[in-house]
Amino acid sequence: MTSSTPSHTDPLADLDTFSIEVPSWAYGNSGTRFKVFTTQGTPRDPWEKIADAGQVHAFTGLAPRVSIHIPWDAVDDFVELASYARDLGVSIGSVNSNLFQDDDYRLGSLTNPDPGIRAKAVAHHRQCLEVMRATGSKDLKIWLPDGTNYPGQDSLRDRQERLAESLREIYDATAEDERLLLEYKIFEPYFYSMDVPDWGTSLLHCLALGERAKVILDTGHHAPTTNIEFIVMQLLRAGRLGAFDFNSRNYGDDDLIVGSADPFQLFRIMHEIVSQQAHLPESGVNFMLDQCHNIEEKIPGQIRSVLNVQQATAKALLVDREALLAAQQAGDVLGAHGVLMDAYETDVRGLLADRREAAGLPRDPLRAFAESGYAARVAAERVGGTQAGWGA
Amino acid sequence: MTSSTPSHTDPLADLDTFSIEVPSWAYGNSGTRFKVFTTQGTPRDPWEKIADAGQVHAFTGLAPRVSIHIPWDAVDDFVELASYARDLGVSIGSVNSNLFQDDDYRLGSLTNPDPGIRAKAVAHHRQCLEVMRATGSKDLKIWLPDGTNYPGQDSLRDRQERLAESLREIYDATAEDERLLLEYKIFEPYFYSMDVPDWGTSLLHCLALGERAKVILDTGHHAPTTNIEFIVMQLLRAGRLGAFDFNSRNYGDDDLIVGSADPFQLFRIMHEIVSQQAHLPESGVNFMLDQCHNIEEKIPGQIRSVLNVQQATAKALLVDREALLAAQQAGDVLGAHGVLMDAYETDVRGLLADRREAAGLPRDPLRAFAESGYAARVAAERVGGTQAGWGA
Amino acid sequence: MTSSTPSHTDPLADLDTFSIEVPSWAYGNSGTRFKVFTTQGTPRDPWEKIADAGQVHAFTGLAPRVSIHIPWDAVDDFVELASYARDLGVSIGSVNSNLFQDDDYRLGSLTNPDPGIRAKAVAHHRQCLEVMRATGSKDLKIWLPDGTNYPGQDSLRDRQERLAESLREIYDATAEDERLLLEYKIFEPYFYSMDVPDWGTSLLHCLALGERAKVILDTGHHAPTTNIEFIVMQLLRAGRLGAFDFNSRNYGDDDLIVGSADPFQLFRIMHEIVSQQAHLPESGVNFMLDQCHNIEEKIPGQIRSVLNVQQATAKALLVDREALLAAQQAGDVLGAHGVLMDAYETDVRGLLADRREAAGLPRDPLRAFAESGYAARVAAERVGGTQAGWGA
Amino acid sequence: MTSSTPSHTDPLADLDTFSIEVPSWAYGNSGTRFKVFTTQGTPRDPWEKIADAGQVHAFTGLAPRVSIHIPWDAVDDFVELASYARDLGVSIGSVNSNLFQDDDYRLGSLTNPDPGIRAKAVAHHRQCLEVMRATGSKDLKIWLPDGTNYPGQDSLRDRQERLAESLREIYDATAEDERLLLEYKIFEPYFYSMDVPDWGTSLLHCLALGERAKVILDTGHHAPTTNIEFIVMQLLRAGRLGAFDFNSRNYGDDDLIVGSADPFQLFRIMHEIVSQQAHLPESGVNFMLDQCHNIEEKIPGQIRSVLNVQQATAKALLVDREALLAAQQAGDVLGAHGVLMDAYETDVRGLLADRREAAGLPRDPLRAFAESGYAARVAAERVGGTQAGWGA
Repeated sequence: MTSSTPSHTDPLADLDTFSIEVPSWAYGNSGTRFKVFTTQGTPRDPWEKIADAGQVHAFTGLAPRVSIHIPWDAVDDFVELASYARDLGVSIGSVNSNLFQDDDYRLGSLTNPDPGIRAKAVAHHRQCLEVMRATGSKDLKIWLPDGTNYPGQDSLRDRQERLAESLREIYDATAEDERLLLEYKIFEPYFYSMDVPDWGTSLLHCLALGERAKVILDTGHHAPTTNIEFIVMQLLRAGRLGAFDFNSRNYGDDDLIVGSADPFQLFRIMHEIVSQQAHLPESGVNFMLDQCHNIEEKIPGQIRSVLNVQQATAKALLVDREALLAAQQAGDVLGAHGVLMDAYETDVRGLLADRREAAGLPRDPLRAFAESGYAARVAAERVGGTQAGWGA
Repeated sequence: MTSSTPSHTDPLADLDTFSIEVPSWAYGNSGTRFKVFTTQGTPRDPWEKIADAGQVHAFTGLAPRVSIHIPWDAVDDFVELASYARDLGVSIGSVNSNLFQDDDYRLGSLTNPDPGIRAKAVAHHRQCLEVMRATGSKDLKIWLPDGTNYPGQDSLRDRQERLAESLREIYDATAEDERLLLEYKIFEPYFYSMDVPDWGTSLLHCLALGERAKVILDTGHHAPTTNIEFIVMQLLRAGRLGAFDFNSRNYGDDDLIVGSADPFQLFRIMHEIVSQQAHLPESGVNFMLDQCHNIEEKIPGQIRSVLNVQQATAKALLVDREALLAAQQAGDVLGAHGVLMDAYETDVRGLLADRREAAGLPRDPLRAFAESGYAARVAAERVGGTQAGWGA
Repeated sequence: MTSSTPSHTDPLADLDTFSIEVPSWAYGNSGTRFKVFTTQGTPRDPWEKIADAGQVHAFTGLAPRVSIHIPWDAVDDFVELASYARDLGVSIGSVNSNLFQDDDYRLGSLTNPDPGIRAKAVAHHRQCLEVMRATGSKDLKIWLPDGTNYPGQDSLRDRQERLAESLREIYDATAEDERLLLEYKIFEPYFYSMDVPDWGTSLLHCLALGERAKVILDTGHHAPTTNIEFIVMQLLRAGRLGAFDFNSRNYGDDDLIVGSADPFQLFRIMHEIVSQQAHLPESGVNFMLDQCHNIEEKIPGQIRSVLNVQQATAKALLVDREALLAAQQAGDVLGAHGVLMDAYETDVRGLLADRREAAGLPRDPLRAFAESGYAARVAAERVGGTQAGWGA
Repeated sequence: MTSSTPSHTDPLADLDTFSIEVPSWAYGNSGTRFKVFTTQGTPRDPWEKIADAGQVHAFTGLAPRVSIHIPWDAVDDFVELASYARDLGVSIGSVNSNLFQDDDYRLGSLTNPDPGIRAKAVAHHRQCLEVMRATGSKDLKIWLPDGTNYPGQDSLRDRQERLAESLREIYDATAEDERLLLEYKIFEPYFYSMDVPDWGTSLLHCLALGERAKVILDTGHHAPTTNIEFIVMQLLRAGRLGAFDFNSRNYGDDDLIVGSADPFQLFRIMHEIVSQQAHLPESGVNFMLDQCHNIEEKIPGQIRSVLNVQQATAKALLVDREALLAAQQAGDVLGAHGVLMDAYETDVRGLLADRREAAGLPRDPLRAFAESGYAARVAAERVGGTQAGWGA
């Protein structure tokens, strides 16, 4: 039931339709609670963010969609924003709500003890649905930052009931071709309990909501030592893996460049994906980035990221699945492991550069971007105004 | 929906019906992969184990049931074993299968690539069901030790499908008044993937099986930093918390005395339990110990353990729920936390000693057991034979 | 060699000289990278912060010193600030440098590849030393936020050499009655490597610097599962435990109220302290708080915190050390553990309230503060201006 | 100060002198506390273990030394054992003491409260030193399994003093050309405290002992999220990195094949090593394996392991150090990271096969061993007797 037969003529052919969605906020400033460093040329509005995202796609051919975040990316005319994106070769991807930057949400948003605040948080999602309809987006992405800091602060159980009710209202407002994606996270911004801390909780809520509710797996949102590819497999098996938020972590939710902390883990994740043919567009799994470029250049950081995901996917496609299955069924522990490692240890950088060249893209996107002069140009142009960031 | 109104006349009245199940194997030798230390007077057969378990109940009144493990506790006549237990004042509790000590299970039992081995593992559970019927037990307890050590060794997904089929066969063999309890564990004895690593996976299988399939939560089986009381709440909400395996851990699955590593965590767990009235017998939650007394005396270790659970439960019963709810609804973070802490900080040892005395039990069970001479007597009697332990 | 004989007449007598230092920044706003919630009455300058800190001492008698942070607490006249503090019954404690809020420090401060930036960071500490001399402070407290986010970003080794040189310059600028305290932290604000990630690294630098260089242990700065009381013991043994930064964590550096996440851990830490008589002022160990009151009221949060530390210390003083030593030497595992637990399980709240009353302090400091009207008064007075926080 | 200039003619030339020590116990049976699976052909005595180890060297040229463990490898005539090893092309490497399999050590060995038991443990090391002198070994390797399971069980501080005394006696018994290597481990076989839990503790004892006392870093012995290459760097900086115990872990001390869980981490470790020229024999760093082949074939498991270490070392040698340093000094975060990743992503398998072929070794050692018929031959020969394992 897990067979996947890559084309014999070109094992990497599936890469033609494989793409990665980039987040608008990756082009704005980000940081830690201690400091947000600023950079020259940082976008000052959604238009400039989308322009930057367009660069990533232009140099890699891998990033045709841009996630937006409301209200960070609020504009007067979303139809125009979508049109602007199309002109730059990209489209608006998922729409992310914001439940963590209003003073009212100090004790929770969709789970707040106060029904009025819950209603306000629900209403915000109706606004997001309107943005989706204006931009052509089909995915409403909810990361619920709600939680508590102290045992006893609130009833863990009551918060689940409130959450279920709030989500029900939102889900009922979605159309038949729209999806609700629910993310989970073990900790931060709350430090005793989170209301959706793990995949099990997210899945339970999605199962209760309906078929179009799916789970988002952010690779940085787990307890240490968690086997993430197992969860990928399990959510695929349940038919509920809606999207990835890719990034890297060594400690907490570090939001580093995907593939920079543990490239083998990224490969194992993509191996599970490819094993279930979930890398194909029809799977409905949206491969997104969610990262913070606190100290490195942002556009190159994004370029490196999408290349890293593509590289891991390419290696996963190179796994000799027949040999793997044979070794697994024979109980050949080292043999089966070796088949997987053979694919991982293969240097695919040249193969991928060849593919880019054949598609009219630069062999070395990072160098080509550096040589394009774009960074210097926007640094010169984008003076005055307020650099975009996580703040309102 | 979370109201629990303890009796105003005696907030601890519910303790009258609260009991803890002890594991037969806690009285045999246990240890680490490095060493199993032996002790004088260790039981050499199931009868002696049950005799020791009977001591725990005799001195505390808290432990009226003994879990048994097949084949460790295999005897020719299980009806007689149950009768022997009754004569000692206890009964046979859940029946635990063993899927980790047969050479055939090197690459898995219920998930093994080889259908013949899976069939063997399934058949073992039929044997356990027979033991249940002979002993009056109603709970079949499955801890699945299956997993892999190396990426690629086997298909994570295929193993889930095999597991689902194997569990289906077992569940179908259970009677209408019998439960299948499925435990999860993040790692050990396998170190890359476990086939039931988390509560989400266990719950998905239980949901697929049917109403009488429930999850077992072993307090030592989670990733570091996991909020266990949240899972307790979530499983209660899903109606699928079947049982606890209580113990303590600081690192891995340390199997230390429950309440010795983090007594506040145990209290928080029991607070969630009491908040949902799940401490009452009709909840169907079986409070069991699963511990290893590697270096300490076994019977006193068990006595300390059941007293620790009772103490945490007593403190949870003392929480002023009205004040807690009021503070929570008012958004009074420190106030609500303070209400919970007030109960935790209360010294209930005297209250519990009073209750024991009123019930004709010793005020200080550890001292009373020490003074009883039982340890010295069995040390003298139990010479020759092979001390019981985890081995066959 | 570790004997400590508490007074037979009053085991808690040592509490008379036990005190806790509070941080000025706890009274300003704090939060996560996602959001800083504001509150009414938040101080707008160092004077108001010290006034608030004075309240904690006034109601508890436990917090006679206030740590300040430069430049957050920069004033024109530090002599006047110290005088103002004295008028409020408190004194200026340690002086904390800031190495994380200057754009120059993006790639490090004392470890930056650029010698000019390192010189700037060193010079900042000379300024801090001047503040110490103006305020009467004797402790220069350095938390080094430096680190890297990506493997290869910089040489881990070279950064150590740069750090050693920078610290040498700072240490050489200290006077004979001044101490340099060096804190360690496993992660944040950098997520691949920190330059002082663990106690071993901090200690090595202190040993190289000289006798007056000591280690700061922040209870939230360790890897999951780290045994913190072991480190306390080891640093005391090395004569290099300079100070605590107390707080609580469940996940990362959560900076919650000390004792709220794991009160038993706090007790075990204080047990190691008391075992080595390090709770006495002559030990030179400075017991400080370093917390963030993101969602709860700040002054009550601090009051609760110092009470929690006192409570844990009181329990540690109640340990029956003779019985403990006897059981330990007899190899009585459960007996020795039981002696420790007996102290922990004792409810000391009444004893401590009695002591407060005898000292002319309120029995219930939280209630007394609430009833004092201070919060309402400052909320009314402190309008306009900019609320203090972590930002410059 | 960290420059390392690989030969321009052959960047991998240093591999000629790079070797890995294999443990005799890897060829015997091992397992978990749950089960030790047996395999056909498992050695039944030290001679057969050394014969198997000789196979690893014969097929890879990488493993010229075998660590032995006393008493597991006790023989009547150690001179003859060393001679036998030489005949098979290998030599006896470090000698490992055993402090965890005697009933006397239940509460500790070198730290036991009982001075008689401490003396016995010290005396065991004198025996090991005699074995070293008979076999030509120069390294006495001590892993101290001592610790406690329950808070209060023993004095953490007193145990350190006892340890210091015991180690002093052992160190004083070593000759001028012998080293004492002290390993640390965060947990297991004890679960509350270990007496040497971290590198800082091991280093402090080594510093107190003298120049010939060095730290052993076992890659599986840290808390989750620990940056191991940082510790490698720090121990090299202190001149006290004596040896590695290589293996892989995902959770606890899993003892899996090195490089199988996180090959990028292994590369980063070797990058720190190569950066300090510590891969050269004159560095005195002994690269050893310490693994358990619980479910896979043992000799192939060892072959895979030494190849993995060589591969990571080769990649580390390929790092363009000039480009790396230039990017680091320029503050080019992504550029410096990219230089490191370029080396990691290089597929060195062909290069290493070429080197093997040039040295008269098989290009594919695993296949060559499989085809050699050795496994079948020893399975046929080694019937009867008791298979070697961890037990006495």
